[in-house]
Amino acid sequence: MLKYMTNYFVRTLREDPADAEVASHKLLVRAGYIRRTAPGIYSWLPLGLAVLKRVERIVREEMDAIGCQEVHFPALLPAEPYQKTNRWEEYGPTLFTLKDRKQADYLLAPTHEEMFTLLVKDMYSSYKDLPLALYQIQTKYRDEARPRAGLIRGREFVMKDAYSFDIDDEGLDRSYELQRQAYQRIFERLGLPYVICEAMSGAMGGSRSEEFLHPCAIGEDTFVRSPGGYTANAEAVVTPAPEPVDATDVPASELRYTPDAGTIADLVALSNEKYPREDRPWEAADTLKSFVVTLTHPDGEKEVVNIGIPGDRDVDMKRLEAALAPAEVEIATEDDLADHPELVPGFLGPQACGPNSDQRTYDEEGNPHGSIRLLLDPRIVDGTAWIAGGNKQDHHVYNLVMGRDFTADGTIEAAEIREGDPAPDGSGPLELARGIEIGHIFQLGRKYAQALDLKVLDQNGKTQVVTMGSYGVGVSRVLAAMAESHHDDKGLSWPMIVAPFHLHVIAAGKGDEIYSTANRIAQAVSDAGFDVLYDDRPKVSAGVKFADTELLGMPYVLVVGRGLRDGVVELRDRRNGTSHDLPVDKAIEEIATILEANRESNQ
Amino acid sequence: MLKYMTNYFVRTLREDPADAEVASHKLLVRAGYIRRTAPGIYSWLPLGLAVLKRVERIVREEMDAIGCQEVHFPALLPAEPYQKTNRWEEYGPTLFTLKDRKQADYLLAPTHEEMFTLLVKDMYSSYKDLPLALYQIQTKYRDEARPRAGLIRGREFVMKDAYSFDIDDEGLDRSYELQRQAYQRIFERLGLPYVICEAMSGAMGGSRSEEFLHPCAIGEDTFVRSPGGYTANAEAVVTPAPEPVDATDVPASELRYTPDAGTIADLVALSNEKYPREDRPWEAADTLKSFVVTLTHPDGEKEVVNIGIPGDRDVDMKRLEAALAPAEVEIATEDDLADHPELVPGFLGPQACGPNSDQRTYDEEGNPHGSIRLLLDPRIVDGTAWIAGGNKQDHHVYNLVMGRDFTADGTIEAAEIREGDPAPDGSGPLELARGIEIGHIFQLGRKYAQALDLKVLDQNGKTQVVTMGSYGVGVSRVLAAMAESHHDDKGLSWPMIVAPFHLHVIAAGKGDEIYSTANRIAQAVSDAGFDVLYDDRPKVSAGVKFADTELLGMPYVLVVGRGLRDGVVELRDRRNGTSHDLPVDKAIEEIATILEANRESNQ
Repeated sequence: MLKYMTNYFVRTLREDPADAEVASHKLLVRAGYIRRTAPGIYSWLPLGLAVLKRVERIVREEMDAIGCQEVHFPALLPAEPYQKTNRWEEYGPTLFTLKDRKQADYLLAPTHEEMFTLLVKDMYSSYKDLPLALYQIQTKYRDEARPRAGLIRGREFVMKDAYSFDIDDEGLDRSYELQRQAYQRIFERLGLPYVICEAMSGAMGGSRSEEFLHPCAIGEDTFVRSPGGYTANAEAVVTPAPEPVDATDVPASELRYTPDAGTIADLVALSNEKYPREDRPWEAADTLKSFVVTLTHPDGEKEVVNIGIPGDRDVDMKRLEAALAPAEVEIATEDDLADHPELVPGFLGPQACGPNSDQRTYDEEGNPHGSIRLLLDPRIVDGTAWIAGGNKQDHHVYNLVMGRDFTADGTIEAAEIREGDPAPDGSGPLELARGIEIGHIFQLGRKYAQALDLKVLDQNGKTQVVTMGSYGVGVSRVLAAMAESHHDDKGLSWPMIVAPFHLHVIAAGKGDEIYSTANRIAQAVSDAGFDVLYDDRPKVSAGVKFADTELLGMPYVLVVGRGLRDGVVELRDRRNGTSHDLPVDKAIEEIATILEANRESNQ
Repeated sequence: MLKYMTNYFVRTLREDPADAEVASHKLLVRAGYIRRTAPGIYSWLPLGLAVLKRVERIVREEMDAIGCQEVHFPALLPAEPYQKTNRWEEYGPTLFTLKDRKQADYLLAPTHEEMFTLLVKDMYSSYKDLPLALYQIQTKYRDEARPRAGLIRGREFVMKDAYSFDIDDEGLDRSYELQRQAYQRIFERLGLPYVICEAMSGAMGGSRSEEFLHPCAIGEDTFVRSPGGYTANAEAVVTPAPEPVDATDVPASELRYTPDAGTIADLVALSNEKYPREDRPWEAADTLKSFVVTLTHPDGEKEVVNIGIPGDRDVDMKRLEAALAPAEVEIATEDDLADHPELVPGFLGPQACGPNSDQRTYDEEGNPHGSIRLLLDPRIVDGTAWIAGGNKQDHHVYNLVMGRDFTADGTIEAAEIREGDPAPDGSGPLELARGIEIGHIFQLGRKYAQALDLKVLDQNGKTQVVTMGSYGVGVSRVLAAMAESHHDDKGLSWPMIVAPFHLHVIAAGKGDEIYSTANRIAQAVSDAGFDVLYDDRPKVSAGVKFADTELLGMPYVLVVGRGLRDGVVELRDRRNGTSHDLPVDKAIEEIATILEANRESNQ
């Protein structure tokens, strides 16, 4: 395939787009690969579409290789199946919904578990039909609250979603492992570094899930790894709970006057000054911080909850949100607290909350009323003693003992993870890094099959609920991750395997011979089965053409210029900046040899 | 590519789906190509998706061949550009609309004129950049009032839409002609018969448009053709208006008592009995029928209009709707007429309507009030005399002369076209047929460029509004049309060029040798570069396998069965029912030769 710059639909921009913050977004727009249509919604120009199709090819080949069969579902779906699984509600405002002319409810699918379940129910009825794996590469919709970073968090995006169907748990394990391996091959073929992390299942549900994260400073996800090989999304890290402590010798709790203790640091300083302890100074880790949030549950119900964590740690909002999903989380406002005069802002302690609170009553069904729920960091174990808010203006309580003076409704993973925290599996201190989520695989189990009644007959003629997995690759996001990992300050730099063109030929100089030679070589290399872009613009300077080769990022650049007088053309390698001269009469053959040898290269 | 029936995701059905009326819909569902997800919304199973991709390939190749460049737009679009061109309103309830979480208006695009216009405006600025042609193959959305016939009129469907951009009208003519020729090649390569018809531009606007119709009894469109080569969609046929008639000798109009004249036939019979004319009997063509409709204009305004046509013709609702678009048309109800006591139901005549009516007044801006608009069939010319409703119960008026006793607000193409009507261009009597619209090409002119301010500098440095064309192929509908034109009572029968598999191998009989031989041949033919489906189901009878080959419709079927004892296998041609034996040791080679020779066959 040969395209000419004089009529190829591309324009490069010298300036970064105003709304772009990350390199992939800036460069993909500047180099004419994509254009923004609306917040989080992009159009694909010819260059971008070419890369997208190449990424899709790799994904498709690896899915086909494991016997996963391609189908294609609508994006516009009736609400009913999603109502049956409760996701119509659970997705909340992230779901694009609409009504048709008959006022029937529809949605733009964020993912297709329900539809695949129903399709298999329609088609299959016996254990002999299983295992089955299906996939599609399809346009998905999520009305993100904060679309950002171009293709990395969009509202309309391309996803490969696959689904497995098995008769039993062992089958699901095998199907999950097959997909996991296919994902490894996909990212290896693309040359995109990845880490497989334990993950939260989120809105998908199910028992086990792992994320494929591309390590990258601008990634939205924080993950941890230990020297012993533990890796997890920070959201999924389970804090090891210490053993309970013997509190026999701890004196009774005592309310003390603590004016001007607006921060944990102030409180610690004041405590050391006015109420010093004998064995050692007070530390932030001796304080218990109350963080009051308002949840909006999927049914619209609001609930105020107190999150208690050691005062030496901050709340990690992403961990908190993941722990409380599908409820939406906001920091409680004064209005939210108006019904709770027992909670004194700035001096709130856990003893006014939770099942032990004297504010709490229970209704007939055992649901708590009158005091808000208290969820505690796992480090706050029975017998530990704390300085906490006194529930009285300018007062804190000292020697407040967990299990003696207050109790909780449960634990919660809301505190930040820190460099050096111990890995949950004992494999050493954790290191933190950021990454882009490029794949996510789930053992869904029987949640969807149960809700939508997908059953088959087993070997004994009994009906069994099918067990499922679901497996996603963010195809358009992978393209952006490739751009993040393959660029420099001059522009993009694609590996051969996804480059829109294998070779970018430029006529650098004046005179018909330069143009006709460049054209002849471009044509011949194209005829040999490669994709060639020829910059034949007659009135554009060599400097501008060079800059465009660097911005557009094809792996090989052929310069036909003044060297032609000496019978040579110059082949540059965009990726490492090297170049060498080729005799013009052997150029076609040599270029074809190099390109052929590197056709699937991911460097 | 080789797939095995034992695990290929397909199930055939013996019964037609309850909601299917046309062969393509019945067979595509029964043979496991598609499944209904919601009214007018379908999912593609592996077989259907394979055909769809093959149709897309042909379309893509022919677009690429004329230098049309592929891009890809979102389906979810902001409302604003469509508000600027007024289509947000004009599309009415056919447009799927929704709001995002910030209450901004969005739509699911039915077609993308606005977006292409804005993209080119963003990228290009000079006449030197033109001509330009862009296309996409993309999912479109139209909330049809009556989705029907499976993929033929869906609410979510796949379309190839192309757009051309030129500096002047001659350029547009050239671009239009290029696309027109590409369309001819597409349908010729697919082996899909077509007729190019003059068409209405409908919601698209613009000056000229033609439809590609596939002649087919179940088609939704009626088209006409004449011996002299005139072809047009019935909606677009312009009735030749006769010359005015001298009405000097026509007596004054006279109101007469006409009880029990509920139909035109009754009225003619009664007239001939009670008020015979001297020269000849009264005929239906002497009567003028009033057909009162209520329009809903895009702004929501309702208007009652009287459509007058000769009594020997029926109203063609599709012609009427096309003539009044973008207004929506309904037959007027009693309620609609409540404000118009001058219109006596059943005895309504044109003299109470139109600019000549004594009911009519005008406001300051010259807009008519007090009487409804009157639109007349073009045959009702000045001087013609009619029997029409008397605007009085049980009365008609005779000798009512157009231009003397009543006048109209305009003409309208609302009357049915009949076999034998003269072609507008004098090329002979019209013949009527039905067809499926598979392509539609439009000279849009400057409508969109003007509304969205797409201008470029011309050779003299002056800004010029760009002129555009738009060109659509209903890709999923083409697939259905192919199924309509390629099936028999036993099932589908695909030509090689779009068949999901080139060869369907069945093991017909018992014994390992049959299965292993079938498998060996299937594998070898697949290795030779063909797509092979091997029915290896061990416990399924030969009869069921044969029936499935006929239902699924692969062009070639290889039967490996009892003939194997004599060293032969049988190659059947699904399309013409012929078969011949092949020596088993030469089967692979011979099959590969036949398949290769027919790879692009559209028979």
